[in-house]
Formats: sequence, C-alpha cells, structure tokens
Amino acid sequence: MLKATFKSAVLCIAALSVFTAQAQYLNETEQQQINALEQTALNSTLAYQIEESLTTEVGARMIGTEGDKRAIAWAVEKMNALGFDKVWTEEVGHYQWIRGDVEAKVLVPFAHDIKAIALGESVGTGDKGIQAEVVHFNTMADLEAAKPGSLTGKIAFVSYRMQRFKTGKGYGKAVGARVNGASVAAEKGAVGFIMRSVGTDNNRLGHTGVLRYKEQVKRIPAVALSNPDADLMVNIFKRNKPVEFFLKVTALRNEIVATKGANVIGEITGSELPEQIVALGAHLDSWDVGTGAIDDGLGVSMVMAATAHIAKLAERPKRTIRVILFAGEEVGLLGAEQYIIDHKDNLKNHVIGVEWDFGLGKIYSMQSGVGEKALPAVAELATYLESLGVAYNKGNKARGQSDMGAVTDKGVPAMNFSPDGTTYFDIHHTENDTLDKVNAKDLQQNTAVYTVFAYFAAQAGVDFRK
Amino acid sequence: MLKATFKSAVLCIAALSVFTAQAQYLNETEQQQINALEQTALNSTLAYQIEESLTTEVGARMIGTEGDKRAIAWAVEKMNALGFDKVWTEEVGHYQWIRGDVEAKVLVPFAHDIKAIALGESVGTGDKGIQAEVVHFNTMADLEAAKPGSLTGKIAFVSYRMQRFKTGKGYGKAVGARVNGASVAAEKGAVGFIMRSVGTDNNRLGHTGVLRYKEQVKRIPAVALSNPDADLMVNIFKRNKPVEFFLKVTALRNEIVATKGANVIGEITGSELPEQIVALGAHLDSWDVGTGAIDDGLGVSMVMAATAHIAKLAERPKRTIRVILFAGEEVGLLGAEQYIIDHKDNLKNHVIGVEWDFGLGKIYSMQSGVGEKALPAVAELATYLESLGVAYNKGNKARGQSDMGAVTDKGVPAMNFSPDGTTYFDIHHTENDTLDKVNAKDLQQNTAVYTVFAYFAAQAGVDFRK
Repeated sequence: MLKATFKSAVLCIAALSVFTAQAQYLNETEQQQINALEQTALNSTLAYQIEESLTTEVGARMIGTEGDKRAIAWAVEKMNALGFDKVWTEEVGHYQWIRGDVEAKVLVPFAHDIKAIALGESVGTGDKGIQAEVVHFNTMADLEAAKPGSLTGKIAFVSYRMQRFKTGKGYGKAVGARVNGASVAAEKGAVGFIMRSVGTDNNRLGHTGVLRYKEQVKRIPAVALSNPDADLMVNIFKRNKPVEFFLKVTALRNEIVATKGANVIGEITGSELPEQIVALGAHLDSWDVGTGAIDDGLGVSMVMAATAHIAKLAERPKRTIRVILFAGEEVGLLGAEQYIIDHKDNLKNHVIGVEWDFGLGKIYSMQSGVGEKALPAVAELATYLESLGVAYNKGNKARGQSDMGAVTDKGVPAMNFSPDGTTYFDIHHTENDTLDKVNAKDLQQNTAVYTVFAYFAAQAGVDFRK
Repeated sequence: MLKATFKSAVLCIAALSVFTAQAQYLNETEQQQINALEQTALNSTLAYQIEESLTTEVGARMIGTEGDKRAIAWAVEKMNALGFDKVWTEEVGHYQWIRGDVEAKVLVPFAHDIKAIALGESVGTGDKGIQAEVVHFNTMADLEAAKPGSLTGKIAFVSYRMQRFKTGKGYGKAVGARVNGASVAAEKGAVGFIMRSVGTDNNRLGHTGVLRYKEQVKRIPAVALSNPDADLMVNIFKRNKPVEFFLKVTALRNEIVATKGANVIGEITGSELPEQIVALGAHLDSWDVGTGAIDDGLGVSMVMAATAHIAKLAERPKRTIRVILFAGEEVGLLGAEQYIIDHKDNLKNHVIGVEWDFGLGKIYSMQSGVGEKALPAVAELATYLESLGVAYNKGNKARGQSDMGAVTDKGVPAMNFSPDGTTYFDIHHTENDTLDKVNAKDLQQNTAVYTVFAYFAAQAGVDFRK
C-alpha cells in the first residue's frame, strides 16, 4: 500500500511538472477543449459511419472508373453534410487500364489451377495466352543476376516471401519485385512474369499493386500468385522437373484513352489565420478489388471525422483545417503530383501535413518532421496524446505518408502517426479489403489522435518550419 | 514442496491402479509396442509427407474429374509404396457436374461486384444470366415462412451467419439453407437462390458444398456469397431500397453423362484373424476448389500413415487393418453407399470403424459407439491415449463420421475422435483448403491417436459389438 501510494505521488508530481513545464502552446480553456475533443472522438461512431457509408454506397473506386466518379460525388456530399465550410474538386488525369481476368495453370508436371491477379497496369497476354516453361528465382536479386538471354521465351517466377512486422517494414524488401520484376525479366528475354504476392496472409487471393515498365523494354504481362499458390509452385519445383505454365491475362492498358479523377478538398476555415493550412490527407481512390475499406477508407473516414468533430465546436480554430482526399494514389501519387502543381504558390501556407495510408490497428507512436524550434510544441502535443497510448518518438525525421510524403518533400512540415501494421499486409490490395476488417474501437482511437493533432496544429499557432 | 510431493505420490498410485485394474486387453509386450508406436507417430513426418504429396502432385479431386483419376492412381501407388499387403479399387459411379463460373453483381441501389461460388451440383442460369429483385431473409425459417408465390420472379437471399464452436456444431444450424434453400425458394416462385456462405471466416471466398433439389420442384441456380459480400448485402438492405441483382452461373449439371470414381482400399493383413477388419476411413475426393488439404487430405494422410507405422512392426497385428479411401463423399457419400452394397455380406466382419473428416486441430476427446461389454476395453484404450491429451467421453453414442457413419449405421461398431474444429469452417469447401493450413505438429498428434487406436483394435481381439 505504502509503495503504491508513493508511486502515485511520484507520478502525480511528474504529471504536474510536465503540465507546468511544457503547457505553453495551449491555454487552459484550449486544453479543456482538446481533452473534450479527445473524449468526443473516442466515444463517437462517426468515423465508422463514414467508413460504412463509403464501402456500402460506393465500394471499389480505382481512378477513372464509375466507382471513382461515385466516390468523388460521395465525398463532396459527405463533407458538406458534415458541416465543412468549403468543399471543391480539382481534376486529376490518367489513362485507361482495365484489369480483366487471369487464367493461370500449372500444366506439367502436375496440373493445377493457380489463383493470381494482374499487377496494376500490366499489359495482357492476348487471347491465346502464353504457354512456357517457368524459371524459378528465390529473390529479385537472383532474377537480376540471371544472364542476359537466359529467360528467352520463358516465364520468370520470383517466390520471395514478405516478412511480417508491426511497422510493415517487410513491404520495402518485397515490393521491388512487383514494381520492377516484369521489366527486369523482360530484359533477359522473359515473356511473362509471375511472383509471390507482396502480402503476409495465406489466402487464395493475389495482391495487386502497381508495376512500372522501364522505357525501351518490352512490356510483358505480370501477375501476383496467391501465397498458397506460390507455396505450391515452390513445392513443385522441389521435384526438380521442368514446370510448364499457362498464363492468360485479359488486362488492357490503353494509354491513349484519357480518364479523369479528382482530388476532393474540404475545409473548415480558420477564425484568425484562415490562410494558414493544416493539411489532413488520405487517398480517395482504391484498387478495383475489395471495397477499399482499409486502403484507404480508414484514412478517409478518420480525417473527415476528425475535422467534423472540430467543426462542431462553438468557434473555428485559428487556422484552416483542410482535408485533402487525393486521387489516383494507387497508380502513382497522381493526385499528390497534381496538388503540388495546382497549389505550388501556396505550399508555403501549408503549416503541417499528415496522412493515414497504412495500418489498421491502434496508433502507438508519433514522430514529427519539423524545424528544431518547433520541437517543444511537438513535445506538448505528445502530452495530449499520452492518454491515447501514443508514445513520442523524438527522431524528428518524419515525412508524410504516401501523398503527403510528396507534399512534405516540397518543404511542408510533417507529422507521422504509426499504427500497428501487423496484419495490414494480409489484406493490402486484395479482394479482402472490406468493412469487416475494420476494428471500430481502433478506429475511434485513431480518429481521436487525428482530432487532437488537428486541433493542436490549428489552434496553437506554432510555426513548424522553424 | 511437501504438497507437490504428496500430489505426485497420489497421481502415481492412481496411475498404478488404472494399470492394474484395467490393463487386461493388451499384455506387457503389446503395451510396450503401443507406447512405442505412439512415439513413432509423434516423431514421424510421414503423415505430413503424404499430405504434401497428395496436395502437390494431385490437388483438387472432385469425383469424375481428371484430378480424381490422378488421386486414385496416387493412392494405389502410395499404399503399395508404404508396404500395404493388398491394395485395390472398387468403382463408384456418378454423373457429370461442371462448376463453371459465377458472375454476381448488385446493380441497384449501389453497384458492386459480388464474390460467390456455385453450390455443388447447382444448375446454371443460361448465358444471359438472371436480373431480378432480391428478397432478404435472415434465416432459413423465415424463407420457409414466406407465402406461396411471394417470390415469383425474384432472387431469395438468406443471410444467416454460421456460429463458431470448437465442436463445429454451428454447421448443423447453417447447412440446411445450403442443402434445401434453392428448392424452398423455388417452391415460392424464386428464379435464383443466394446465401451467406456456411463458414466462419471473413474472406472473399464463397463456401461451396452440395445442394439437393426436391423432386417435382423447378431447379434454380444457387450460389453462396463470400461472407464479406453477404455483410455488404445486409448493409445495403438496411437502406430500405429495392435491391436489383444480376446473377450468371455457368455450371452444368449433366445427369445423363456418367462419370466414374473409385473407393481405394488397402490392407495390412491380420496375422491371426485376417478376416476380421478394423476399418480406418477417410474420403479421397475433395471439392474442385483448393487442394483438399484439410477436407480430407488430413484424413487420408492420417489413416495411411497410421497403418504404415503399424506395417513396420516385426509382426502384423492379429486382425486386418483396412484403410478405405471413399469416393464421392462430397456429393453425397457415394463411395460409402457403394461400399455397403459391395461388402454387405462382410460388414459383420468389420469389427469397428473410424473416420477423420472434420477439424484440423489436436484431438481432445474420444467416444465409442460399441456394445456394453466392450466398454472396459474402450476404457483401457483410453488409458493409452491419455498421454496424447485425449479425454475419454463415456457417452458411448458415437457413430462414425461421414462415410463411416453410413457404414456404422449398418451395425458396425464405431469410434469417434473429436479434434479442435474451431477454425475448420474458415476453410471448409473453399479455395483456401490448401497445405499451408496444415499444422504439422497437430497432424503428428492426430496420427499418433489413430495409430494407437488401430493397433489396439487390431491386436486386443475385443468384440466391440457385444
């Protein structure tokens, strides 16, 4: 008992000292406000309702598709309904790509149907498909090391297995094959490229995701096998017999057909410094598989709900809070690139940017990417987030995620919140990206973090550049 | 310390008393033998190797397909290679059914692609598909209560959600819709039947499984939606707007085209009572999705490995151990029915039967279905299984699983082993039924249980009928 009491007393003194030493950016009323906002977000189902609405009433929304058009209309309507002060769209152009279907089979030595999905923006095989021997590589490095011409007329198969981490860092090592594998294989003569999915699950669902064709290299069709199918292929290769494969991909890449998407932007206007913008990003587009609940419905719901909570206060915070729902993130940050062009003269007024485009668990860590003089303010923000279980990582090396990364690379200060990403790559870019994967409690915590951050950044008047 | 020592002593005395009171069916040498067999099975990778071989070299094997033919040849070859004394096949006939593809969409009020799979032996829709309004029922009972004619020209949707249990008992309440839903809906005028999958997962993969069309009722196409898609439909229905659906099923049910499968049977011949048969069952066929790793590759691997372990003893046990790999279980116990016909005069010599066709975790319980006088022998068997964590359920109401249930219904005594089935219905009848779902450690325990049982039943000479 004594020990416990003593410990409480120490904690109490520590808390007081934090309060007195660091609480200089928000006054007492504002502190009550930020704590009340945290509780509002923690107890609100608004973010989940937005998520349910987006996935139910819109669903899949790849840039340029009918789903994307509906998503844009949905976002405009929703932001208006939530009480945003201004809502508008800014056009983002792309070309047509149609996924089509994949038919994949092992023909020899053992007949198997193989579940696979076209990599994003892959070319097709033509109606007859490809029949060819498969050459197996354990890693992308092994494929890169293959001799010129050694894959002539063959299909290259990279079976690298992505590793699972809370931080999601296994993605970086795995994604190179998806982005570059087809062109590397084609340079050595391959007629097709197949790979183990960039994902940590064992479902019979391939993970899509965009590829990049190198210029001057023949474009060959590229697909990701579901992970159990990749396992099967590896087991077949253990028999040391030639493996004959059939691959038909009906994808169509029509670069001469223009399509359109749009960044959807909504604001609550600052009461004192309306020209200064706190930017909350997410991407509105999804792949054309699943309903984009996690990638990036979570981000969309969170930034809209956080802003809506703040919009319900009696007064607007000093600065403007701008929600940017980027277009065409999945096919290459198209919306971010367009945003940077459209707002190039105004990026200096973007005081800080944050995005959610990763993970689906609780946020456990915050890191800034700001000027040194702003660090005490970040430390104060961290104290408001402690009760939400968010630790303060003082590295100060953050850049924004995804789209916001492109924006902050242009000199806009960044904040980054790290959620638990342990299971994110089970779902990422698959048909399994659906509403049932959303944990409503975690979404409340995530939204509370974004709400607290947005209020602080908009109200405290900190120059995060300095 | 004192307490612990005292407890050990009590346990020790208890163990001794069990030994002296019940160990009357196996002599000391045989007891050493059964314990050694248990250790052999626990340390052996044989069952896993068989499983890997079946799923890699054969894969999906629905009755009548090329995969099934390869499975039959594989099973004959494997049993011979494992040292079985006799191996043969017995033909089982069926008709042709081809799964084809399903194209399913919600058209109104929100366009969505829906993932679904044809129920086993469903008819197709024709090339144009069906476009119709959907009527939603929460349960099969609600569908049954619908007024005659109330579904004329419509698609019936049952959204009942199967519950998860260790015993798998949620299946019984859920499967009625799959078996009978199409005909019940058709009786009320429906042109199509869609349902939430009979499964406990949330993957975008439907669960197939056989349906039964009632005689004199129009046969309508029937599909199972993946569970996330069923959730989506339920959420759409919450908007209280008419739901328009498109369904195209290219399945073909050709009852005039005969197909063939076979029961594959292998024995190690009894050294003293060769005419007396201990029957170990599993089914060789699978659905045409996945590689049938769990359903019923596990059973196939286990009964083959258990028998192979016993075949390596210096002497054959007294009775014959017969492995029966049944044909066409999935489409309605066809192999079991044929076996009962082919062996009707010899069922009296089947001293006991057991099958594995459920679950994928450790076995935690044993229950017999034998004559009362045989119960002391079962109790002794239970003592040999204690070290494997198998509790003795004294209910004595077991019938065999699946095929062996049909056999034991003809008067053959039964044993039943209950494995942990918590996750079984995540995978059951889906594309996800693949090798990666097999837990090699659990398979060792399972195989050890079957090995111990088979040796005991073959060696102890108990009349399980009395």
